[in-house]
Amino acid sequence: MSTEAARTSPAVSGDIVLSIDAMGGDRGVECVVRGMAMSLKKNPRLRYIVHGDESELRQTIRPASQLEARTEVRHAPAVVAMDDKPSRVLRNAAGTSMWSAIQAVKDGESPAVISCGNTGALMALSMLALRKVPGVDRPAIAVNWPSLNPQGYNVLLDGGADIRADADDLVTYAIMGASYARNSLSLKRPRVGLLNVGTEEHKGRSELHEAAERLAAAAPTSDFDYIGYVEGSDMPSERVDVIVTDGFTGNVALKTGEGTAKMIQGLLKEAFSYSSLSRIGALFALTSLKRLQKRIDPRRANGGVFLGLNGTVVKSHGSADATGVSAAIKLAFTLAEHGFTERLAARVAADPASRSREVATGGVTT
Amino acid sequence: MSTEAARTSPAVSGDIVLSIDAMGGDRGVECVVRGMAMSLKKNPRLRYIVHGDESELRQTIRPASQLEARTEVRHAPAVVAMDDKPSRVLRNAAGTSMWSAIQAVKDGESPAVISCGNTGALMALSMLALRKVPGVDRPAIAVNWPSLNPQGYNVLLDGGADIRADADDLVTYAIMGASYARNSLSLKRPRVGLLNVGTEEHKGRSELHEAAERLAAAAPTSDFDYIGYVEGSDMPSERVDVIVTDGFTGNVALKTGEGTAKMIQGLLKEAFSYSSLSRIGALFALTSLKRLQKRIDPRRANGGVFLGLNGTVVKSHGSADATGVSAAIKLAFTLAEHGFTERLAARVAADPASRSREVATGGVTT
Repeated sequence: MSTEAARTSPAVSGDIVLSIDAMGGDRGVECVVRGMAMSLKKNPRLRYIVHGDESELRQTIRPASQLEARTEVRHAPAVVAMDDKPSRVLRNAAGTSMWSAIQAVKDGESPAVISCGNTGALMALSMLALRKVPGVDRPAIAVNWPSLNPQGYNVLLDGGADIRADADDLVTYAIMGASYARNSLSLKRPRVGLLNVGTEEHKGRSELHEAAERLAAAAPTSDFDYIGYVEGSDMPSERVDVIVTDGFTGNVALKTGEGTAKMIQGLLKEAFSYSSLSRIGALFALTSLKRLQKRIDPRRANGGVFLGLNGTVVKSHGSADATGVSAAIKLAFTLAEHGFTERLAARVAADPASRSREVATGGVTT
Repeated sequence: MSTEAARTSPAVSGDIVLSIDAMGGDRGVECVVRGMAMSLKKNPRLRYIVHGDESELRQTIRPASQLEARTEVRHAPAVVAMDDKPSRVLRNAAGTSMWSAIQAVKDGESPAVISCGNTGALMALSMLALRKVPGVDRPAIAVNWPSLNPQGYNVLLDGGADIRADADDLVTYAIMGASYARNSLSLKRPRVGLLNVGTEEHKGRSELHEAAERLAAAAPTSDFDYIGYVEGSDMPSERVDVIVTDGFTGNVALKTGEGTAKMIQGLLKEAFSYSSLSRIGALFALTSLKRLQKRIDPRRANGGVFLGLNGTVVKSHGSADATGVSAAIKLAFTLAEHGFTERLAARVAADPASRSREVATGGVTT
């Protein structure tokens, strides 16, 4: 039995156990399991607790495989559907694979949970089970976006956890986003910008002006550089690493970028199949085109990370294939290895711009 | 003298006079004048009143050319700078080419003004001189975005005139955007969507819910179809023609799309120059690649149009080259030919979802 195998197989020091919700993605269990196997092949330090329909999981995980040996299957009879409202999910959480997967993090069995399921439900259940880090009022979703920076990605947050954000939230997002960039992209001193409709000081909404003032004032003692306002065109730019905005704007920006990239890729395909000449051209340029495709492949940046909770929660795309799931697992592993949850909590408590610091010291916002 | 030439040259019935601010763009007067000449070559019904430094303009417009014969040069000694704050511009408008160009519309000499200058200043001066159409509280900037629709473009508004929009404004944007799509893209019954973070009814902000209800209720008697919420990924999609949002979100979305397209084009260039093979491939596929380039060329969609004022105002990109200026002129001509200003005002007054109708009839918002 794989459960026993996983339980009895000796835990090597340095192993990291990830909790995986196998249900609720658009492509089904098989895809999640293949992603798990892909990751394990590259990284033998991984172990899994996987949550979902036990018989389906056991049929999918190859008997006597490396994956079986390092995976504990935990049965969950119910599934959170993609279109379930968060309020409904909260009332019916018990028995779902998503809830079971989050519980493993709450109970200290695993530092990180990964799910391809319903984003709103995952955030609602994660907040309920894991609770917010002191000093964080609104958790945020951090998303990696392909950029011209050496690290290949910029971080945008909030990608859609909450449609509102006041100045306090934006400042907290900046601190959390910087911490995330340090731990996931190995940037020592990330450059943080506030997303606005122009770079001039007078542009934009009042909460942006207040957040900008506080970040600028705190910058000399912060562990990141505040570079001022950035614009939508800076999403892929190399002058910023972390882009901070509310979850409404962030969500629209991410989906607009994805939609634009998809349209151009479609037109490119069309262009190359237009004539015999262009088809020959495509053949000659195949390697280069594949390199480009890989560079802007959203699957490789798969995984929004919920920031501000007592535990790492990685939301994989609902339509992620095995490559996408594997990318999300890699991200969760990296964060777990760095002790990211604890580091982020410490940053929020310590940063000079943070609200929690103000509360602690009784200081007044400038 | 070109001024006299233009004044004395007999006005053919069907001629349309456009008022052009030649100053304030990033690329200078020469670029604007070349764009004017390009347009005139294709469309002999054009006449111009061009505003700016007279001696510079006379040096640039080729003597005895068709352009000279159909252009009146109007001297304006001052220029609105790209980084001038709108408040400062309002105090110092007199004598600027931008103010002079707008005045020609106000005085009925021309139905439309075109400027490559500072957007905020152009909006402030246009509102001051032309005034808002009854029923419009916040004017909006409509921008064409490359799409997979047969007409090649979708319309997004507000592209950044105002960072706020309440439910009333969003409803007015829908009516104005539909009118604009009918007149500029020749769509009989445009499909209008509200930009949101998801397509489910409960998603998003309260002003969106209210606007959605009113548009849905008015749909049977409106001159457009309300299709519900759309997402950022729908910017280039073929399921919508007019995308309605506040000016903050709209500006970020447009710039994100532009930034993404630019990044991919850069990477594509890189990919094709990577190896000898890929360079050969590019040669074979050259025609197809050029067709793609043309399809997503932002210059061809150049020109944001200010909606809701008593007069048509076309804002060309600050960095527009002659092709871009010519595209903006074409757009202004098309709108002027359709009597767009009057048509839009009539629509706002008549649409069942409109606030002005409610005011007129004493009706209550549902």
